[in-house]
Amino acid sequence: MEIFIHQSLDLRQRDFLEKNFPGKQFVYGDDLPKTEREKAFMRAEVVFGNVSSGWISRSENLRWIQLASAGVNQYIRLDWENLSKKINLTNLSGFFGISVAETALAGILALYRRIDHLARLQVSKTWRGKEERELVRTLWQKKVVILGPGAIGGHLKRLLLAFDCEVIMYGRRRENADIITAEELDQLLPGIDILVAALPETEETINFLNRQRLALLSPAAMLVSMGRGSVLDETALAEMLHSQKLLGAVVDVTIEEPLPEDHAFWTSPCTLLTQHTSGGFEDEVSAFLKFFVANLHRYIEGNPLVNIVDWKKGY
Amino acid sequence: MEIFIHQSLDLRQRDFLEKNFPGKQFVYGDDLPKTEREKAFMRAEVVFGNVSSGWISRSENLRWIQLASAGVNQYIRLDWENLSKKINLTNLSGFFGISVAETALAGILALYRRIDHLARLQVSKTWRGKEERELVRTLWQKKVVILGPGAIGGHLKRLLLAFDCEVIMYGRRRENADIITAEELDQLLPGIDILVAALPETEETINFLNRQRLALLSPAAMLVSMGRGSVLDETALAEMLHSQKLLGAVVDVTIEEPLPEDHAFWTSPCTLLTQHTSGGFEDEVSAFLKFFVANLHRYIEGNPLVNIVDWKKGY
Repeated sequence: MEIFIHQSLDLRQRDFLEKNFPGKQFVYGDDLPKTEREKAFMRAEVVFGNVSSGWISRSENLRWIQLASAGVNQYIRLDWENLSKKINLTNLSGFFGISVAETALAGILALYRRIDHLARLQVSKTWRGKEERELVRTLWQKKVVILGPGAIGGHLKRLLLAFDCEVIMYGRRRENADIITAEELDQLLPGIDILVAALPETEETINFLNRQRLALLSPAAMLVSMGRGSVLDETALAEMLHSQKLLGAVVDVTIEEPLPEDHAFWTSPCTLLTQHTSGGFEDEVSAFLKFFVANLHRYIEGNPLVNIVDWKKGY
Repeated sequence: MEIFIHQSLDLRQRDFLEKNFPGKQFVYGDDLPKTEREKAFMRAEVVFGNVSSGWISRSENLRWIQLASAGVNQYIRLDWENLSKKINLTNLSGFFGISVAETALAGILALYRRIDHLARLQVSKTWRGKEERELVRTLWQKKVVILGPGAIGGHLKRLLLAFDCEVIMYGRRRENADIITAEELDQLLPGIDILVAALPETEETINFLNRQRLALLSPAAMLVSMGRGSVLDETALAEMLHSQKLLGAVVDVTIEEPLPEDHAFWTSPCTLLTQHTSGGFEDEVSAFLKFFVANLHRYIEGNPLVNIVDWKKGY
């Protein structure tokens, strides 16, 4: 059984992997010339890392691929009705809940407590303490709707409850969501302080926050966009921010990344762009590797893999 | 009984005050020429607002002054052994716990999640998502020592527990503190991730975070300075930051405010200056006024005032 490691690993990480599986043969893409990598992939039964979707559609020996991401949108349009007969795809769903929730909260607090303004004032050594103080707000007891009761939404809810916030979860099923229809949501939107999007990309979520829905928010409300950029009508949001129809926005994900230089978000007022950093945490790749190692033990022992992507749901 | 209002109030606030006390005579400092204000103060029995300490030492009719701040350090050197025989001084202790704790947490999260860097990158439309992501850290399960188990420390502890942090409180009494001696504290300092100062200014707290104590912190640790700037050896801290002996610092209060243009904090790396904004919250003066109104009802009815400053403790 050949195992192809597409994800870059340092020597310490390779050592950890190999010591876990004495005798197994690992091929590292990083050690091969670029032109040789697809061939090595084609020989492999097990793959770790986000290879191009074309490789997967042409694969012959592949039985299982472990992605190094939670998102699967670049693979979703493959012919999984056939591929899934022989290939399992697992992702890192749930892995980024803590870190994305922390950036979401860091962004919310930054806008309320003027941290972004204060950080910029520091560059020009400008003291505006008194004037800034009059503009700060508290998160305490604010009303929040979170779209997406997954790992991100669940963790963010826990953090917001410490601020005595009222947190309403929107999702598909009553088991883990307070509201499940767009009608229920649209009724709530005018009365809330913060709307957080933490949805996967599916046919239902694309453009879910369209112009009409965004317009239901109060001018004192804040929008937080985590997860997938396609959920949001970016043009509509930028217009609302420019015309001060919203208090502000924290935007981690955008449809195009890096964000084009002429994109309106760069200059819209009270907008904090976190540049898709929200998933990051200390020694991230080592954590991914540990997960792959645990799954590879399961694979070798014939036990069910954890985090198999459900192609019908799309995550 | 004449009541002198030194704190600026708008018409809505004045109306609220007067409706609460029909027939009482309020004199507003804002309505008088500057030269007339001290005279009006001298006639008053009750005063609301932070007048100069000289006025208090020369006062004749004053029986009670309600400050519009928690800090009392500008008044602490008056001769209270005599003054306290006829004058009560009340402050807003406990009022700023929620807001200061929110700025403290906003600052901690900003440094871990690189919000200050990202906010500055935005000005030059610079996308550095991947490089920044490798530098972000999580607050999750960090070890924190808070100096000062008052309103700020208590509220911040509540917020940090949601992040599964280990929070150790340092104070004077075992009732509300986990550690009470400097020896216990110094033993802990090398192993913690975050040190938060939220102490009042007293003889014991001035320069408590001196050069030797700061040097006990690990280079991966963060310092957060709230409350009173005099707690900290600013020169020592700035040197540590410049030589990367600390992960970073969030500094709300400094010995001199506004911070002088040549102060080392302006340019020290990984330093976030929140410019004494941390106490701020929505409609702050109205909240102060409500507190004064409740205390004035107590005063008129002969009931004990709330938040009388204890001169022996100094807060």
